[in-house]
Amino acid sequence: MAGFKHLVTVKFKEGSAVDDIIKGMEKLVADVDLVKSFEWGQDMEGPEMLTQGYTHSFSMTFDKKEDYAAFQTHPNHVEYSATFSAAIEKILVLCFSAVQIKPTPSA
Amino acid sequence: MAGFKHLVTVKFKEGSAVDDIIKGMEKLVADVDLVKSFEWGQDMEGPEMLTQGYTHSFSMTFDKKEDYAAFQTHPNHVEYSATFSAAIEKILVLCFSAVQIKPTPSA
Repeated sequence: MAGFKHLVTVKFKEGSAVDDIIKGMEKLVADVDLVKSFEWGQDMEGPEMLTQGYTHSFSMTFDKKEDYAAFQTHPNHVEYSATFSAAIEKILVLCFSAVQIKPTPSA
Repeated sequence: MAGFKHLVTVKFKEGSAVDDIIKGMEKLVADVDLVKSFEWGQDMEGPEMLTQGYTHSFSMTFDKKEDYAAFQTHPNHVEYSATFSAAIEKILVLCFSAVQIKPTPSA
């Protein structure tokens, strides 16, 4: 799905309640219509040389950059961010207009 | 799109022919049926504190982990990887089974 992507890659602090934090994110994106797609995953096997110590990736898609900006200041997001940030050991965030090659985008 | 994800985040070496390298990747995934979806993007504005210096993200989806393994050893991939690796200053790779929350996956 093309659109404007918000890609967050993290390593959680040891002892964080990761399952609860992820459930909270799933609820956040389910409740906020601005988020058009959301998926996440955890790398279980990658060597540190490739993962650089990061373990989880979260990808959200918005129709346009303005929707992402609105999401950033959405009360639900602001509230959730405090919980999320407190559990993060390191984070990498990229935001970009996605170029979709496959499947061929419909016109 | 759920499935098995291969998420590559990089910073290219200065002076690399980035456009050509990306065109090569687009051709690679177009030619190899194992790759079910592919999209990429470049973060143009993110602060270094968030991007950690990374600039580009490439996301490929496979139906299953075995297809990703087959892609890794596919001759087209092996050939392309040499070009790609030579242009990389730093790289972060995560591989995982994606959990799709939105849009609600069809049964």
